[in-house]
Amino acid sequence: MLSFESDYIEGAHPKILECLERTNMLQLTGYGMDELCDSAKNRIRAVCGTPEADVFLLSGGTQTNQLVISSLLQSYEGVIAAETGHVNVHEAGAIEYSGHKVLALPSHNGRLCPKEVKNYLSAFHADQNNEHMVFPGMVYISFPTELGTLYSKQELTELHSVCAEYGIPLYIDGARLGYGLASRAADLTLREFASLCDVFYIGGTKVGALIGEALVIPKGDAPKHFTTLIKQHGAMLAKGRIIGAQFEALFTDGLYMQLGRHAIEMAEKLKALFKEKGYRFFIDSPTNQQFFIMDDQRISELAKLVAFSFWEKVDDTHSAVRFVTSWATKEESIVELSKYL
Amino acid sequence: MLSFESDYIEGAHPKILECLERTNMLQLTGYGMDELCDSAKNRIRAVCGTPEADVFLLSGGTQTNQLVISSLLQSYEGVIAAETGHVNVHEAGAIEYSGHKVLALPSHNGRLCPKEVKNYLSAFHADQNNEHMVFPGMVYISFPTELGTLYSKQELTELHSVCAEYGIPLYIDGARLGYGLASRAADLTLREFASLCDVFYIGGTKVGALIGEALVIPKGDAPKHFTTLIKQHGAMLAKGRIIGAQFEALFTDGLYMQLGRHAIEMAEKLKALFKEKGYRFFIDSPTNQQFFIMDDQRISELAKLVAFSFWEKVDDTHSAVRFVTSWATKEESIVELSKYL
Amino acid sequence: MLSFESDYIEGAHPKILECLERTNMLQLTGYGMDELCDSAKNRIRAVCGTPEADVFLLSGGTQTNQLVISSLLQSYEGVIAAETGHVNVHEAGAIEYSGHKVLALPSHNGRLCPKEVKNYLSAFHADQNNEHMVFPGMVYISFPTELGTLYSKQELTELHSVCAEYGIPLYIDGARLGYGLASRAADLTLREFASLCDVFYIGGTKVGALIGEALVIPKGDAPKHFTTLIKQHGAMLAKGRIIGAQFEALFTDGLYMQLGRHAIEMAEKLKALFKEKGYRFFIDSPTNQQFFIMDDQRISELAKLVAFSFWEKVDDTHSAVRFVTSWATKEESIVELSKYL
Amino acid sequence: MLSFESDYIEGAHPKILECLERTNMLQLTGYGMDELCDSAKNRIRAVCGTPEADVFLLSGGTQTNQLVISSLLQSYEGVIAAETGHVNVHEAGAIEYSGHKVLALPSHNGRLCPKEVKNYLSAFHADQNNEHMVFPGMVYISFPTELGTLYSKQELTELHSVCAEYGIPLYIDGARLGYGLASRAADLTLREFASLCDVFYIGGTKVGALIGEALVIPKGDAPKHFTTLIKQHGAMLAKGRIIGAQFEALFTDGLYMQLGRHAIEMAEKLKALFKEKGYRFFIDSPTNQQFFIMDDQRISELAKLVAFSFWEKVDDTHSAVRFVTSWATKEESIVELSKYL
Repeated sequence: MLSFESDYIEGAHPKILECLERTNMLQLTGYGMDELCDSAKNRIRAVCGTPEADVFLLSGGTQTNQLVISSLLQSYEGVIAAETGHVNVHEAGAIEYSGHKVLALPSHNGRLCPKEVKNYLSAFHADQNNEHMVFPGMVYISFPTELGTLYSKQELTELHSVCAEYGIPLYIDGARLGYGLASRAADLTLREFASLCDVFYIGGTKVGALIGEALVIPKGDAPKHFTTLIKQHGAMLAKGRIIGAQFEALFTDGLYMQLGRHAIEMAEKLKALFKEKGYRFFIDSPTNQQFFIMDDQRISELAKLVAFSFWEKVDDTHSAVRFVTSWATKEESIVELSKYL
Repeated sequence: MLSFESDYIEGAHPKILECLERTNMLQLTGYGMDELCDSAKNRIRAVCGTPEADVFLLSGGTQTNQLVISSLLQSYEGVIAAETGHVNVHEAGAIEYSGHKVLALPSHNGRLCPKEVKNYLSAFHADQNNEHMVFPGMVYISFPTELGTLYSKQELTELHSVCAEYGIPLYIDGARLGYGLASRAADLTLREFASLCDVFYIGGTKVGALIGEALVIPKGDAPKHFTTLIKQHGAMLAKGRIIGAQFEALFTDGLYMQLGRHAIEMAEKLKALFKEKGYRFFIDSPTNQQFFIMDDQRISELAKLVAFSFWEKVDDTHSAVRFVTSWATKEESIVELSKYL
Repeated sequence: MLSFESDYIEGAHPKILECLERTNMLQLTGYGMDELCDSAKNRIRAVCGTPEADVFLLSGGTQTNQLVISSLLQSYEGVIAAETGHVNVHEAGAIEYSGHKVLALPSHNGRLCPKEVKNYLSAFHADQNNEHMVFPGMVYISFPTELGTLYSKQELTELHSVCAEYGIPLYIDGARLGYGLASRAADLTLREFASLCDVFYIGGTKVGALIGEALVIPKGDAPKHFTTLIKQHGAMLAKGRIIGAQFEALFTDGLYMQLGRHAIEMAEKLKALFKEKGYRFFIDSPTNQQFFIMDDQRISELAKLVAFSFWEKVDDTHSAVRFVTSWATKEESIVELSKYL
Repeated sequence: MLSFESDYIEGAHPKILECLERTNMLQLTGYGMDELCDSAKNRIRAVCGTPEADVFLLSGGTQTNQLVISSLLQSYEGVIAAETGHVNVHEAGAIEYSGHKVLALPSHNGRLCPKEVKNYLSAFHADQNNEHMVFPGMVYISFPTELGTLYSKQELTELHSVCAEYGIPLYIDGARLGYGLASRAADLTLREFASLCDVFYIGGTKVGALIGEALVIPKGDAPKHFTTLIKQHGAMLAKGRIIGAQFEALFTDGLYMQLGRHAIEMAEKLKALFKEKGYRFFIDSPTNQQFFIMDDQRISELAKLVAFSFWEKVDDTHSAVRFVTSWATKEESIVELSKYL
């Protein structure tokens, strides 16, 4: 069945499988200390324009978020996130499990408002009773957000500057970073992006890889003994090469950005199709997650022919649904979908 | 350079790569809820003779140990392990990070003594002040142990029965299970093994896979909402298929046991070689990790030609070293090694 | 200086000091296993009409909340609370430190709405993706709330029944329970109160004691080895008698309820005074915390003569302030205050 | 019945009760920010000769140990302690509950050997695989130890210097500090003691107080926002004055040291009595805990007349028992005991 259910329904881009095969019988050191991982990390440093960066290759998004947040925060600190932020709603309490509160601020279509963050920080530090409260110790955002939206360069600059003012890091969850940077609406490059935050990760799993997220700490100021922290969180693979190979392939010959562009092209076609068919947008998303409003009966009929996600009820007879494209989406699939709409 | 450094220096057995490729463009549901994972789990249930078993596919050993131990223990409980147990020494405090004490008992060449476990439990429950102490809530052993040794069927039966008497689970870390069961010294089958504990995992990473450990709970009594616990620990992969594929291949046509047997054959040859050359054994290991005693000067010379691990000082001029074989060890390598000894 | 700053500015009611003195040189067993603690617990069981109850004597509110919530919840569960709930805002992240998320629902003058709780639980259990979310595992309310308001018997009954329907406990923070039950607006007795929840604590520190909160689990179904959990949280006192003595005195000859009534009488006089002087109420509180709206300039002048708390800005020139009475408030103090208003 | 069961069977020294009464109706700020706490802290700074010290007043030993250890350690660190150390055996896993491993080294009658600590640290840092292990981040000792023994000034100096060499703090649990310093075997003053460690606490509960331990950080380099950490651990009392009053009295007119001397005098008499009666010593303790070896039958008979603790079996027919004196022990009690021996 035709599927627009998510951006992780297929396996890996063929070049990744090729890399795995080509390097398969090399005898490499364990725990990510091997040449393949080194090479992948250097490619990432180069493309980000951050030669000093610490780079760590991890398995998944929740793991990365939990590790970064709990390692960078002091015990008395929490992390500011949008109410809709992944860490606040869909990570089964992984942040709290590691001891820290998610300090939820209003979501503006998935985004935090820099001014509201500033006001929150300013009010917190003015409060004479704040010793009895959770200290805001980091700002977490996702790019693109969980609703497909993006921050502008201006907004990132403001957020980063608010964070700097209060001496706390800005951490960006880039699970779908490739799709964000490739969007027509994005007004910044990966290099600019890397210079506008303190920690971020480049999502592999949703952008062509089978597994893997590359954590980048641009200034090279990772917490002491971060490798031990990775081990302690159960996040270290004996054969680190499996993630090394993914990023080696993704960052050779511009593959990562190319996959991003393909998904965005497909998303634009999808968007045009729904517009043409007269559907309303639930959110005007410029990335690979698209949200439309549909009649509930239409939804149940369509669901027999195409896989997609229910998002939320909009009114008594309508709901929002999500259609997702990816590096693997074929143009034929959109043509086929057009027949059903 | 010739290497006997560990059993995780190569990638995956070719049949695993084949499986990854063959299934690569299938559109599968995320988070391990797909057909490939289902099929792999069913193969595991079948080969273990545990049709009711809960099976979960995880990434690595430390992750599995942390998840199992923290999920099965109550907050006031700790886990009994041998002093040399992996969870006690080489997991960067992952168990304590999750809130639980490792209650270390003496190691007998890596093994716990069933009688000593019984005495410990009996003394604990007789102590009137035990409310101020950590309750022993589980017994952890590894099979083979970190020193390559094995428990006999008789010993496992005794340990399991002690655990049952005190109402606590026996958990077996099978990171190298394939090598243990294939040993000539092993006097039990996988089915018997599965019936002599409450939880165990079948190690993939060290026995032919690129990644993956299959957690088996034979009676199907996994803790409630274990999937959520996996997510909360950052241990859930969006593309669970990557581990599904490894175990699908490993448990098709007896591959897993075949890989085990190969490593053991190679270990036997290695052992014979060292014996022939007049070396003493540090431990008489019947599995794929072999420990020899060597003159320190000999060690530094040999280290220029072959990779292996320093284990510990034995006396002023001698040390123990570890040589490891695996599914990928070639007979030529042993022949080559013989020239250097 | 005249003070209405809080209900914990004085030491203990004289009868408590008397009890401490009278029992001072008795040789008693440690860790709360003594006769004084036993007697206090039995008095509490009797007055609550819960002969089967488990009763534990603890030091403070945050400690009690952290211990109860983390002990009753499973790892994958969080606690529902009002946004304004003490556990959500003024406990320095103690709940998250113990691994659990506070699931904040809207506050209605400090109260949760039973229907909203029901809707939340119902929506959660209908959500097919809830395995990636924090399971609601308990409802926390305070009586009186942090804003001085009360739940009616009807509301408690509804909340309790919603909790029962979803199989989760209703936990009531009674830091100021004595002041709540003594309010003219309260329509239930301590016995009825004890029958309408699964766990609660009777606040001592703010109602006449120097230290101490009595945790009551009416049906006697405390988590296994709760004493060990108390120890593990660093919450066990070697000389448990110090809290035993407080509750022995508080629950002899109806002292606890008498102290509650006195504070309420004083609060009523305070309320009448402010009304008479033409002040508006920020919240119409029926208990010992009173919230008024004042001109900011008036506030700074008054603050030179009387201690009270700033609460929050109301508009550009006005703020809400809090005045608190207690068991120790003297009528003369209110007369004196009237001169300043 | 005559009791030598522990040093926490009586309430408080009368001067402490007097202080509580005298200050009872003072209106004081909450959370330990009051004048009484300030005064007590200043007295402690003065007597320790550490004018810059940070002093915090806490409720009990386990609480203090958990708070100090978890606040001073990094996530990847554990605490070195003797196998017999209180944190290793009798705190219900409170240290592990806070995420840290207790790295147990051999006990020499309760003491760590400075040379063994140095060897451990040196071996750890020489180990190339130490990234997979728990980093030793602190040394914990108790003075007196759990077996009544003391470190000499020379030993403390060595331990402190080993710690300094490896950049980790030396933390001393002084639950019975008063009894240690008053011992004839002690060759150092409180001031010297305070200069030979990085953190310690002065035990109140076992030395005359009803409750309270005074945590002293001599150089004033407490972790940032330590007050918030106290709150987060549920260790902050609303009426901090209750502990302030204990230490105000204990450190007025040399009461604390005087109580220590009394207990030691009584212990010397006890020791002499047992010696005279021909009993063997299990440990030759110079402080208020005394350990004798007795015939098992004698023990059961004596237990009908006097309260004391069983310690451990020595051989088939003998056991070690513990007799404890305190500030409250009366000379008559020893006379009475002599009749029973």
